Amino acid sequence: MRRVHSKEVKMAALDRLQQRGITIEAIAEIVREMQLPYKPDLTLEICMESVLAVLQKREVQHAILVGAELDRLAEENLLSEPLLSLVRSDEGLFGCDETLALGSVFGYGSIAVTTFGHLDKHKIGIIRQLDTKKYGPDGPVHTFMDDLVASIAASAASRLAHRLRDEEEAAEEHRRAAN
Amino acid sequence: MRRVHSKEVKMAALDRLQQRGITIEAIAEIVREMQLPYKPDLTLEICMESVLAVLQKREVQHAILVGAELDRLAEENLLSEPLLSLVRSDEGLFGCDETLALGSVFGYGSIAVTTFGHLDKHKIGIIRQLDTKKYGPDGPVHTFMDDLVASIAASAASRLAHRLRDEEEAAEEHRRAAN
Amino acid sequence: MRRVHSKEVKMAALDRLQQRGITIEAIAEIVREMQLPYKPDLTLEICMESVLAVLQKREVQHAILVGAELDRLAEENLLSEPLLSLVRSDEGLFGCDETLALGSVFGYGSIAVTTFGHLDKHKIGIIRQLDTKKYGPDGPVHTFMDDLVASIAASAASRLAHRLRDEEEAAEEHRRAAN
Amino acid sequence: MRRVHSKEVKMAALDRLQQRGITIEAIAEIVREMQLPYKPDLTLEICMESVLAVLQKREVQHAILVGAELDRLAEENLLSEPLLSLVRSDEGLFGCDETLALGSVFGYGSIAVTTFGHLDKHKIGIIRQLDTKKYGPDGPVHTFMDDLVASIAASAASRLAHRLRDEEEAAEEHRRAAN
Repeated sequence: MRRVHSKEVKMAALDRLQQRGITIEAIAEIVREMQLPYKPDLTLEICMESVLAVLQKREVQHAILVGAELDRLAEENLLSEPLLSLVRSDEGLFGCDETLALGSVFGYGSIAVTTFGHLDKHKIGIIRQLDTKKYGPDGPVHTFMDDLVASIAASAASRLAHRLRDEEEAAEEHRRAAN
Repeated sequence: MRRVHSKEVKMAALDRLQQRGITIEAIAEIVREMQLPYKPDLTLEICMESVLAVLQKREVQHAILVGAELDRLAEENLLSEPLLSLVRSDEGLFGCDETLALGSVFGYGSIAVTTFGHLDKHKIGIIRQLDTKKYGPDGPVHTFMDDLVASIAASAASRLAHRLRDEEEAAEEHRRAAN
Repeated sequence: MRRVHSKEVKMAALDRLQQRGITIEAIAEIVREMQLPYKPDLTLEICMESVLAVLQKREVQHAILVGAELDRLAEENLLSEPLLSLVRSDEGLFGCDETLALGSVFGYGSIAVTTFGHLDKHKIGIIRQLDTKKYGPDGPVHTFMDDLVASIAASAASRLAHRLRDEEEAAEEHRRAAN
Repeated sequence: MRRVHSKEVKMAALDRLQQRGITIEAIAEIVREMQLPYKPDLTLEICMESVLAVLQKREVQHAILVGAELDRLAEENLLSEPLLSLVRSDEGLFGCDETLALGSVFGYGSIAVTTFGHLDKHKIGIIRQLDTKKYGPDGPVHTFMDDLVASIAASAASRLAHRLRDEEEAAEEHRRAAN
């Protein structure tokens, strides 16, 4: 059985996002909205860097591959029942979409988990556009993808919060050393 | 070494909530606010029942004992540094308060986790009153307790969502059988 | 879009286990092996009851539906690459199988999580028979199912540990009351 | 209220390990034992590097501070009852020790979680020496610390597994490029 190279996994994960019309910018905008209260001059570029860093992680890439596949198969009616109806209707008590997304959120600490919970409830930016419930019974299915985007954004926001603290501390030390 | 009886653990956990001025009603009000959009005629009594059911769980009781103890020790300056300052200031990147609270949330499914995240960000009702940051450096410390209350409310809300679905299905079957 | 009834979900989940040759007895045997050191006279019947109780949970049923579907699709070469190769080879760093299984384990406390970890490493009983790596490139795929069985067994074992404690305490009270 | 500098947190966390007689080497030995089946020529130095990398994480440092504090307070009988007895006896159904430790394990993927479960059951090396149950009622308390050491070892082992894969892939590419 062939062994899959990391690069192939990474390329495929980025490709799945693109196929669904999800850009790095769109995810970075959610990150920026989450972190602006703590860092008013935060640029979109820094948020994009953080999103890209999160997308380097194998756990995140694997979750994207699984979630995107299940959404696609639901769209093409290739899942068996009753899973097909559960995924197509983005059933509120389903939970496997959040579980899969949570797996990679944990890696960025408890702040990432609470931010994910917030995004899951409030569906900001591109997450709202992906909301499966907006579309009719024959529309596109993003049941897994909207949670994955929320998880990437939450992870990138938490990662940034930790980085910003490191920078503040470094700047403080520099100031002290200069005096 | 003596073995602690479950009843003693349960009584102590309920006692810790009371000592902090946290009533079952106050937690039930958060649960009601969370579930009203899905069940407009939801009574406070049903929410209280759900909160009490969550408080029967050993995991929840143990987490309350640990969290209340750390808050009390911080208040009385009995923790060693730098933990004392981290807990007293409810440091944003601390995370152990959320981790402890999350442990018992998981038991109620991924909806409970996302509801916890929402409550942690938005601090509704009694959770807002408990917010450690509101008080001065010598004020009360609720760093762990506010997350624990959010976790109990989130668990009770998720538990209720599952029960309400069960009841809807039972009612539907009854209707069908009657026709 | 039709709403799926809980009974349909439950029947489908039990059906998926059966299709893979996984009996309640086989899972109960793992539970018994896990709990025997603490309760030497534990019967298989009590373990089967505990497994059935775990299988009543929506989170568990949903996870079975998703996992069994992905295994089946991999077996029939209906997943797209590179996900197909990752699932077919039960790639060690894949992780989505454990993540999905962990989601429902959390509900049974931290003992359930550590027991799951143990079973995932040691592959006892039916879990070993399901191990995808045993089969050749065209053999059956149980990449998700072996972790799901480990998660059901771990949950049922943890549930039993909590129950046994409750019973011990009740017996103790009865003894005291009788004296 | 003073803000605690990251360096102070890190120094304190390393100090707590040292106070309990836990060396980086002892943790690295567990990591090596876990990874040797996959990499027979793995040196202790590489395992130590991985342990040190895990100890750089804020989540890990915070968990050490909380766990070491609770162990110390239990040892000095400064916790209130019934928490004191639960921690002193390392009560099997307690769970908060595993929950706290799991919080930082999640950061290293699902392999880290299953490895943690394995270590929690089998208590290899220094983890066995720390086992609270070995000591009498007035002996040292390591109820939280043994789980924290298991979590650090599991995280470092998982981190290493991911790194080794990266290196294998890099070496493979190099070979191909050379041909």
